[in-house]
Amino acid sequence: MATPTRIGLAGLAVMGQNLALNIAEKGFSISVYNRTTSKVDETVERAKVEGNLPVHGFHDPESFVNSIQKPRVIIMLVKAGAPVDQTIKTLSVYMEKGDCIIDGGNEWYENTERREKAMAELGLLYLGMGVSGGEEGARKGPSLMPGGSFEAYKHIEDILLKVAAQVPDSGPCVTFIGKGGSGNFVKMIHNGIEYGDMQLIAEAYDVLKSVGKLSNKELHEVFSEWNKGELLSFLIEITADIFSITDDKGDGYLVDKVLDKTGMKGTGKWTVQQAAELSIAAPTIASSLDSRFLSGLKDERVQAAEVFKSGGVCDVLTEQAVDKQKLIDDVRQALYASKICSYAQGMNLIRAKSAEKGWDLKLGELARIWKGGCIIRAIFLDRIKKAYDRNSDLANLLVDPEFAKEIIDRQSAWRRVVCLAINSGISTPGMSSSLAYFDTYRRERLPANLVQAQRDYFGAHTYERTDMTGSFHTEWFKLAKQSKI
Amino acid sequence: MATPTRIGLAGLAVMGQNLALNIAEKGFSISVYNRTTSKVDETVERAKVEGNLPVHGFHDPESFVNSIQKPRVIIMLVKAGAPVDQTIKTLSVYMEKGDCIIDGGNEWYENTERREKAMAELGLLYLGMGVSGGEEGARKGPSLMPGGSFEAYKHIEDILLKVAAQVPDSGPCVTFIGKGGSGNFVKMIHNGIEYGDMQLIAEAYDVLKSVGKLSNKELHEVFSEWNKGELLSFLIEITADIFSITDDKGDGYLVDKVLDKTGMKGTGKWTVQQAAELSIAAPTIASSLDSRFLSGLKDERVQAAEVFKSGGVCDVLTEQAVDKQKLIDDVRQALYASKICSYAQGMNLIRAKSAEKGWDLKLGELARIWKGGCIIRAIFLDRIKKAYDRNSDLANLLVDPEFAKEIIDRQSAWRRVVCLAINSGISTPGMSSSLAYFDTYRRERLPANLVQAQRDYFGAHTYERTDMTGSFHTEWFKLAKQSKI
Repeated sequence: MATPTRIGLAGLAVMGQNLALNIAEKGFSISVYNRTTSKVDETVERAKVEGNLPVHGFHDPESFVNSIQKPRVIIMLVKAGAPVDQTIKTLSVYMEKGDCIIDGGNEWYENTERREKAMAELGLLYLGMGVSGGEEGARKGPSLMPGGSFEAYKHIEDILLKVAAQVPDSGPCVTFIGKGGSGNFVKMIHNGIEYGDMQLIAEAYDVLKSVGKLSNKELHEVFSEWNKGELLSFLIEITADIFSITDDKGDGYLVDKVLDKTGMKGTGKWTVQQAAELSIAAPTIASSLDSRFLSGLKDERVQAAEVFKSGGVCDVLTEQAVDKQKLIDDVRQALYASKICSYAQGMNLIRAKSAEKGWDLKLGELARIWKGGCIIRAIFLDRIKKAYDRNSDLANLLVDPEFAKEIIDRQSAWRRVVCLAINSGISTPGMSSSLAYFDTYRRERLPANLVQAQRDYFGAHTYERTDMTGSFHTEWFKLAKQSKI
Repeated sequence: MATPTRIGLAGLAVMGQNLALNIAEKGFSISVYNRTTSKVDETVERAKVEGNLPVHGFHDPESFVNSIQKPRVIIMLVKAGAPVDQTIKTLSVYMEKGDCIIDGGNEWYENTERREKAMAELGLLYLGMGVSGGEEGARKGPSLMPGGSFEAYKHIEDILLKVAAQVPDSGPCVTFIGKGGSGNFVKMIHNGIEYGDMQLIAEAYDVLKSVGKLSNKELHEVFSEWNKGELLSFLIEITADIFSITDDKGDGYLVDKVLDKTGMKGTGKWTVQQAAELSIAAPTIASSLDSRFLSGLKDERVQAAEVFKSGGVCDVLTEQAVDKQKLIDDVRQALYASKICSYAQGMNLIRAKSAEKGWDLKLGELARIWKGGCIIRAIFLDRIKKAYDRNSDLANLLVDPEFAKEIIDRQSAWRRVVCLAINSGISTPGMSSSLAYFDTYRRERLPANLVQAQRDYFGAHTYERTDMTGSFHTEWFKLAKQSKI
């Protein structure tokens, strides 16, 4: 028998193939397996073509498992849910005490915790590892978020440190996240933040195009320019790219031919549900999810547009004369300020869950490993890391001195853009809910006193007072009848 | 042994006591039981005082169950969750085939479905019945939302029709909602809508007080006036009352002494989580939940206010000269238009769940039974009923001809109020998210094309086109590198 390989990978869709090739390229021999065996051959063939990489293919799970050096480590990249359970079942029968399985999919964190316990009973170690960066990231260096057994992490730390994206001055984009399902949870929030970023960019595009009348060429230039400054990021970069592409099937630009319906895969939904569960306001992320839902109702929207057009409500309400350069500058600032709110929400979701589960997650370290490899990679994350370096107990990113100053500098532009959009009939749910979040969070006194008075009126839920401690109940109805005003 | 009573009720906190007295007052003899027996005696005493009502108290579950005529019907009013299971266990051992248990609490609908199945195995019938109207409603006539076994409903239909609130021209506020947990689900959405109503009223209050500088006396007059028109409702009425009450522990008005922290009990959270689960946008309801979360962070808000004040951001940004009468009129219109959006979201949540579960719920009938007894009772619900009478397949309340016209008439005022609030630094998350919902839903073309292009760029998720059918993928990165612009 040949020398055992260092690690195994099961599940050879494009992500799995690419990660396997990435690992092999870093000098770690790897065994690969897939239920549909043609994928195995495909991967081995690619390994040959892409530089004779040490990838060894297996058509049956037993010889696959036996080919790996002990303690064995196998990464799974299969669809979340039942396929993961099925793969674990297939592989674990051939594994031995001390061996380790790593789930690299977008799994619900509680499933990982359930599996980690079940594996522990068999003497096996388990990790749930978020992998971000898409197919490209998997091949060239993703951001990795491994959580679960620290012992298992230590078995492959050397591999992960090399496979992950490398960021100058910040190191490899991987760290041991924490216990249990923390790796999956952090990846889920990463995706929620990604939803927010994409929605905010779409709104910036909408205002510039619909109100500012910018052409695709101008949009390409604006986003290219933005990508040189504070907004420098993968998503801004690809947005600039998108506006540059002409339609290969007809006239004009391709982006104008893409149907305005957005798909989704579940992590955004989970993020919003977890926000409600944890009592954390995350309106920017929630509005990006709602926007995807409403985008899907294309037929209803076409009909609604017809109903309101006949009543005089046009698609774009007014043709206002705008100063293009001023608008571009305002929108950039509104986008940036909204982005701060969105990340503040995501970070606070992670902190709340960490406290609930006792994970002791390091927010600044998470910002660090998102600086490269992943979809939300951005120069902006360095500012977040520094904010938590300054104060690891920061209640909210908004009150970090640097971010607070940035918001103060941008708030006028931010308010101008949202009001311009409102008066133009262009919805900016992400930017306006971010602004409402900011204006609510920075307000000492909210009208919540009225809501609490109402609750006490009809449900005797009691209230606290501003001027003395204790819990109070008032017979509002009775007193109102006696009132002289 | 005495003549059997018609029905039983277990769980004698104030809601339970009041509902028992209500039933007895309508001429139905009732047995009552509570684990803490002093509550039993208290209820019997109240029955005597409030008119020698036919309430019979029992200190042990066996004699309680045996005192009721067969097939026995017992309503439980205990805390949702484990106490319900405990009460079922205590009572069911003495019950016989064909008997029925009704849960009148705010239970999670899936718990009711689980219990209905378990009861069926014992030959017992089960109903989950939403009860709205608070303590007052329970005593004088609540809105009742019974769902589950239709056979069980038929056993007590005569009682419920008399116990429920009675609305002239609309009949009793009760109907058989549907199978399974539908009664609980509908009550949950009712509560979500209630959250939305309360938040929108709080925002109206905030704008009038903080920007319009209205005194409590003026606010009392405004809300009293509003309660004579299109906004006529229980919540507007009690809001007017609240502004009329002076502080019994000090100077000024009580509402100003109530701490701006809002409590909550779970149904709003469930509504938001279900919205995400069902892919239904419900931003007005979600923003009301977020506002409660943020209200709870009083200490953080005080500190944030300090941080931003030192940077020049005041609580209220500008002292603008406003025309009070014009502002009052604008705010009324903004509140009304936002309310339409909030109810559209709630109704669509119910419809989506009904489709998923095969409940066949009648939206117009739900609006009818909410017209009296419950917290959201309002003249407005009559318009909703009529909208569904006109078209039971209405995709969204917004496109009903009457509501569409009302929105068109109010949209200018609505946009003025939200922009005024934004420029004043007064957050109106409910009104602004409602407006964004409207402007998104009525828009034929959204910027979702960009989001979908991004998804195809980094994740090969494919996209559809506006000009041809099929699913497409583009090598965006490659084409961008070749692009000449």
